[in-house]
Parts: sequence; C-alpha cells; structure tokens
Amino acid sequence: MRDWLSQRAKLSPEDVALIFKNEQWTYAQLNESVHAVAGILHEKGINAGAHVGILLQNRPIYVVIIHALARLRAVTVPLNLRLKSNELSWQISQAECVFILCSNESKDRLSDLELKNLEMILVDSMGWPTVINRASNLETQPFLFDLEAVQGIYFTSGTTGRPKGAMLTFKNHLWSAMGSAYRLGHHSDDRWLLVLPLYHIGGQAVVFRACQYGITIVLQERFDAEDLYQALKMHQVSIVSLVPTMLQRLILSFDDDGVPEKLRCILLGGATAPQSLVDHCLARNIPIALTYGLTEAASQVATASPAQVRLNPGTVGKPLFSCELHIVRQGNTECQPYEVGEIVVTGETIMQGYFHAQEATETALFQGGLHTGDLGYLDESGNLWVVSRRTDLIISGGENVYPIEVENVLLSHPAVREACVVGIDDPEWGQRVYALVVKDALEVSEQELIAYCRKHLAAYKRPYMVHFLDQIPRTASGKILRNAAKEQLESIVAI
Amino acid sequence: MRDWLSQRAKLSPEDVALIFKNEQWTYAQLNESVHAVAGILHEKGINAGAHVGILLQNRPIYVVIIHALARLRAVTVPLNLRLKSNELSWQISQAECVFILCSNESKDRLSDLELKNLEMILVDSMGWPTVINRASNLETQPFLFDLEAVQGIYFTSGTTGRPKGAMLTFKNHLWSAMGSAYRLGHHSDDRWLLVLPLYHIGGQAVVFRACQYGITIVLQERFDAEDLYQALKMHQVSIVSLVPTMLQRLILSFDDDGVPEKLRCILLGGATAPQSLVDHCLARNIPIALTYGLTEAASQVATASPAQVRLNPGTVGKPLFSCELHIVRQGNTECQPYEVGEIVVTGETIMQGYFHAQEATETALFQGGLHTGDLGYLDESGNLWVVSRRTDLIISGGENVYPIEVENVLLSHPAVREACVVGIDDPEWGQRVYALVVKDALEVSEQELIAYCRKHLAAYKRPYMVHFLDQIPRTASGKILRNAAKEQLESIVAI
Repeated sequence: MRDWLSQRAKLSPEDVALIFKNEQWTYAQLNESVHAVAGILHEKGINAGAHVGILLQNRPIYVVIIHALARLRAVTVPLNLRLKSNELSWQISQAECVFILCSNESKDRLSDLELKNLEMILVDSMGWPTVINRASNLETQPFLFDLEAVQGIYFTSGTTGRPKGAMLTFKNHLWSAMGSAYRLGHHSDDRWLLVLPLYHIGGQAVVFRACQYGITIVLQERFDAEDLYQALKMHQVSIVSLVPTMLQRLILSFDDDGVPEKLRCILLGGATAPQSLVDHCLARNIPIALTYGLTEAASQVATASPAQVRLNPGTVGKPLFSCELHIVRQGNTECQPYEVGEIVVTGETIMQGYFHAQEATETALFQGGLHTGDLGYLDESGNLWVVSRRTDLIISGGENVYPIEVENVLLSHPAVREACVVGIDDPEWGQRVYALVVKDALEVSEQELIAYCRKHLAAYKRPYMVHFLDQIPRTASGKILRNAAKEQLESIVAI
Repeated sequence: MRDWLSQRAKLSPEDVALIFKNEQWTYAQLNESVHAVAGILHEKGINAGAHVGILLQNRPIYVVIIHALARLRAVTVPLNLRLKSNELSWQISQAECVFILCSNESKDRLSDLELKNLEMILVDSMGWPTVINRASNLETQPFLFDLEAVQGIYFTSGTTGRPKGAMLTFKNHLWSAMGSAYRLGHHSDDRWLLVLPLYHIGGQAVVFRACQYGITIVLQERFDAEDLYQALKMHQVSIVSLVPTMLQRLILSFDDDGVPEKLRCILLGGATAPQSLVDHCLARNIPIALTYGLTEAASQVATASPAQVRLNPGTVGKPLFSCELHIVRQGNTECQPYEVGEIVVTGETIMQGYFHAQEATETALFQGGLHTGDLGYLDESGNLWVVSRRTDLIISGGENVYPIEVENVLLSHPAVREACVVGIDDPEWGQRVYALVVKDALEVSEQELIAYCRKHLAAYKRPYMVHFLDQIPRTASGKILRNAAKEQLESIVAI
C-alpha cells in the first residue's frame, strides 16, 4: 500500500494537515517536509529496519519525523521525555536503537548516558522547515508500506516488571483508525486537537488517523488549561483527546465561558474517568466519549460515544468494529455478564508482541487474545465497565507507573529494607504514588527518600508521600498484600 | 475477523439496520433473521464454498440472504433480473452455481432453463420473517470471515466479449467501505437509500458499508421518482446512490418541493453524468458526488464529494484512500496530465480475477493494476476526467450493454448478414442502443428484428432502433469502424 502521507498529499494537497501556534502546513507542505527530512535522515545513515529513538517535545518536527521514519521503513521508538537517565538508557538499549533524535532542549538528557553504537541526531540542526526545497537523495516515489511491518516500538509497563516495547504494525494503526472513525464518526471538517504527548500511543494514533481521514491536527506543545481552551475556540476544534486530569482543569473554563461551538467529542482515555467528572460533564452538556485503550492494542479498544455516554454514564462502551472483548477468569473460561474477570482483547489492532521479550509476549498473547491484566466486566448489553487497571498499575495524570519500578529504586537505597508502592485516588491526578517503607539499620527521612527517587525516576513516578512502618502486610508465602497496604495508606492519608 | 453482521449486532443491536416500506429491522433483528435463514439454507445443503445464484427483487430478504451466504461461507452470485433465459442460463452455468434462490415472481424465469445439478430454492417458502425464533442447526457463533475469501461473483461486461464473473473478496468490500467513508464522511445518524438493484455491485456495496458503519439502509423495491422523493423526506435519508437517469427524473421533484433537509449526498455513478445535469444540480444546491466505479474494483474508485463537485464540476475526483489511479498509453507508460489514456486502478479493492476466465483475467490484471479499458485523463491536480467508458460499452439507464452480445443475437437471425450496435447519447437514458444492419437475401422489418432481440435479450439491451443499410463501415482488414458507424447513426437520428 502506498505511503499514507504521500497518498493523502495527492488526495487533499491543499487541506490543512497541521496547526501549531500561528503556523500551519497543508498536506502538500507536510509531505514535502517529510520528503526533505527523510532525505536528511537517510544521508545520516537511517535505513529500512533501523531502530530510531525519538526524544522530543510535541512540535511539528515530531509529526514530520513520524512520517519520515515510516517512509524510510525505519522503526520509531518514542521515548518519554520525563524519564531519568537510567530509565532512558535502559529503554534505548532494550529497543536496540542505533540512532536517537533529540532537540536542543532534550539533548542534555542524553549527555550522561553510556551508550555505545548510538548516534545522536539533533533535529534543530537539520534546518527544517527551510529545508523543504532541498534536493533529496531518496529513491523516487511512490513509497510503499508493508502493512505487516513494524512501525514502532512503544514502551509500556505491561502487566509485570519493567517497561516492555510493544511492536505495532502499520496494519494495527490502519484498523485502529477505521474502528475509531466508525465509532466517533468522520466529518470532513473535523479538527483534532493533540495535547497528549506524541511519545504515547494516544498521541501517535492521532497522527495516523488524521492522515488517513484527511483532517487537521491542532498540536499543542504542553497542557495549559487556558491555552487549550483558547485553541479549541480559535481553531474550531471538533475532537480532542484528553486524560481525565486535563479535563478536570479544563472544565473550569467550560463552566465560565461555555463549551466551544464546534467541539463535538472529548475523547477521554488513559485512565478511568472519575464518576463525578462524568456527571459534571453530562450536567453541562459537555460531549465526552469514554474510552478504554492500551498501547498493545494501538490505542482505543472500547469507546462509548458522547451519545452512548449520555444513555449509560460510566461505561467505556462496546469494542470498536475492529476489536472484540472477552472477560475471562482463571483457566481462560468466559465470564457471565456482570462477573468481574480479566479483560482480553482480540482483533486486528493487537501488537505483534513485545520486542525481545518472548516470555512477556507469551504471557500477554495467547489463544489469539491480548490478556491485558486489567479487570472489568461486561453488562448484559456488552458494554465494558473497567473495574481496575492492571492489578498493580498506578495511573497518575495519564502516565503509567509500575509499582515494582519505584520499589526497586527505594530498595536500592541502603536504608530501606522493604518497600511497597501503591496508587491512592486523587481528585486531580486520578491517582498519586504513595510508598510504605520498612527501614533497615540506617536512619533516613521521608524527604531524603523522595529526593533519592527524584534522582532515579521520572518525576511522575516518585512517591508523593513515604510512610514508615515496622512491617509490610504480606501473605504467608511473603507476597505483598497490596490491597491491604493500600487500605492502610488510605486510612493514613484520610487523617 | 468476526462476521460483520454479528459484530455489528453486538455493537449496535438497537440501531435500525433496514427500512422497507412501513417495516423496519434493528441490527439485532436482522442478525436473528440471518441466523434463521442461514440455518434453513444450511439444511438445504448450502455449505462453505457452494456457489449460489440469487434471482430476486430488492426486498429485505435479499439483504438477509447476502449476509446469510457470507455467514455460511458460500459464494454469492447475484443475477440480473432483466436477463433472458439464455443469458441467465449462461451465467448460472458459467459461475458453476449449484443452488439458485428465487421468489414466486422470479421463478418463472428459470422454468425453461436446462440446467443440470442446479437446485432451486424458493425464498417465499422459507417462512421469513416468522422463522426468526426457529432453532437453527448452525454451528455456534462467532462466525468468522476469512478476508481473502471470495464473497461473490459479480457478472460484468469486462472489456471484451461476454459477461465475466468478477470475484470479489471480503477484503475488497472492507477497503472499499473504508475508502468511501473517508471520502464522503461517516455521520452516526446517516441513512443510505438503496434503490440501485442489489444484483449490481453498487447496490451490494451499500449493504456491506451500512453494516460496517452501523447505519440504516432505506431499501426501495424499484425506481419511481415520486416514491423515491417521498422516501427521502419521510425517512430523513442523508445519502442516496443513483444513476444519472434516475436523478434526471428526480430533480423535477426537487425543483417543485425542494431538496430534502437531511440529504447531504447524492452519489451519482454507473455512467457519466451529463454536464447539463451537473450544472442544474449546482445551480439548485443539490448535493451531488460524482463517482467512477467498476464491478472489478468493488464499486467506487474515484469520487468527488459534493464540496469538490462545486469547486470543479465535471470531474469524478481523486481516487479513494484505498486506491490509486494511473493513466497509461500503449506499452503501459504513464501519461502526462491532460493526456488521454486507459484508466488503470491499483489498490486493495481490486478483484481476485474473473472466475474460470484466465485469459480475460490476464488481460485485465497485469503489472499489479486493473486495466479498465475506460479512457480518461488526470488534470494537474490529479482529478480524474472520464472520457469514455470501455471502448464499445453502452451504458443505458445505468445498465451495461456490450455491443457484441446484441450483434451476436442480430446475426443469429436468418435475414441478417452484418450487424453493428452502438450507443447514442440520450438525455434520459444516458445512452440508447441503436443497430445498423445489412440484410441477407431474406426480407425482415425493423419491428421484427427488435421483437427478435426482445425474445433473446434483456429489455435494456434490445435496440431502440434498427437502421438498414448496404454496407457497414469497416477497416481494410474488415474490422467494424464503430465510430464511423456511430456518426452515421447520429446523423440519421438527428433528422
């Protein structure tokens, strides 16, 4: 199949592809940019199959690079900007990146990495956007996509242990876009505001959808409620993807100045939306779509459209046309309606597997389904209700925090003997990270431990509070009783 | 992939799938109907791989049967209701049908066929729709579709000789639906009126699209301008597929009573729309989309949306996202913009080939493209302008007439020595069939020959006029000069 962007540029060259601040690019201009940038990257040695890390802010060049790497048949490895050096270093080597694209702002993050055989490319030095007319040494068009090929490796916590790289193919993105359009509708004048980070699947999926549908992306560099509200109004945005924490802050503007006229869908995902937020939106006619998605399934899996949310507030709805949902209990037998079990997803959007992690892949993918580790149930109509995300996963402000990672850092401190990390519900962040710690012989303060974590972990992963105690609740066999630990912490927080 | 209808019935059971006269069926009800009917057909011996002819009017049961045969993995062979016995007999045996589904009204058409090993099933005797709750001996759900499997064999004139059966796969239909949605938009409250015969690809494509998108089909049994206008209004139809001849008659109602409020797109295909019709629609704000499609490409290939028609009246627009267009001249080299050549289509919607017609398949499909035999050019923006459909093809009221078929019937008459059949432009029908005949020793009248053709050919194929002359214009090698013959006839008609 023809390269999606060059096909789109042929079909709607004059339509606006991308708006960022006061600038905009048509599909023809975006395609020319991508051609020039792909030429530069090719000269620097990026070829088909190369794994290329991206450590960039939400900027137009990020969108250009996503398409350029696809055109070169290189594999995109988006890296979370909030990771600490050791986390970055681990992901870069785990994904076997041979190049890394960074900016003047992000390059310092790489300075103390000890990575051999890794070439750093500074995107600010490429001269974009003035390179558009530069001769390119790329092969002549048309570029073709092999739909079965891996487009990117997306790090995700998975159900256990350290982050793993989910391999998503072009086919996964194509089917995801189709399923999303059939659920949310595709209007020819749609404009999709993208404030989710492009290093998350929820951000990247919008890039591919927009290109396939031929609609406009309104890109925001970072979340600021007032800026976002103004952008929604000024650019006549019709769809925006948000995590609940963002919407919590944004609705203050809605309350003051009304819902922007053209806004027909706020796609709310990344974490379970608090019922109070859903109720507030319904009361004020704010059109929210609730969605359940996973990196391993190329973003949206189930989605309740705004009309469906009004009928049945709280459910994340039915699976997309391209997916199926099953709720299973132990032994992989199907649950009855309302019976809670593990959410299993099948369909054409499921990842190829985790990169170089055969065991984790076999744990996640078997009998044709993605075993999410998330708990939920289906009602008698087949609507999905998510009970809890991956048993231990903490989702704070839309970012996934896997407790074991934080616990490992705490345990690496000489004064810590035992550690248990849990997420406690928080009205603003959805959840916040809390830690229970049993001290060893040495003395240490809460502030010291938080500072220690700040040094070794992305800011959103470090504990908001550390509580010391004599004993962490465990099973007879020594396994941490996370729910008991959580209850204990909740009672402390409540005081 | 899961059977589309059972997936849709899970996702939107309460949404209306089908409206016919005063009746309607939800997706859940349609799915139950299909399950019951598939069970009956299965009991009658229809299994995976069986070729099943359908000779039915546009009725709800036709829609049910399309889905039921797909569920049984049988191959649908839609048959044109207007064919004469000998034509029917040829197509049925050519497609190797082992069953044929007909109604009380259509069964007489089969009575004088001499077909061995063909079982006739009368759909009126199946008891639908009251069979819904009948126990079915079908295997348990879910039913799965193999996207690479052949869904149907659709007879089409092809570029030469007798009709050939184009094999379309589920994948072809899936990509066609996706491409159409991205071009025309998909609104969750869309209702698509279907008056095109279900035995044509343009009709059947709507059945698959509606099911994938989850929208409503408003089915009409036959074309009647006043009935159609009332149905558009009463059922709040947003999209309707028409051939130009139908729209010519319908616009009188638009002129008198206005364009129905919800109607956002009249998809006009099957034949080139006369410029006068396009101009009339533009002047009155009638939202027409002009499309170029082929049976061999699962319907739409290029489409100009109503907005694009307003900008650039006359073009059929750009290819769908799922297709590509090339204009080639002899030797398969690509033409320049505005240079007329043969239209070649590539993409995921192209048929697998013609059934049991290897030579014709090799003529149509080579170097990865469908060589349509139609002539056209691309403007500098890549919009397609169709100059003429397959060299000799006559399109009359949206039906394809291949001259050689009519000529063969004329030549079979003892009084005819030579015959040449051409299409002459007609304001109502697009084209009408005219014949030039050189008599043999015997005497024969125009009326006798027309009556003779009426006996052996579908009504739309018989000549509207037969003109006798002494010599048919031919090349030195004896090949008919069709353009010269046409000019000669045009000058006679003009008198």
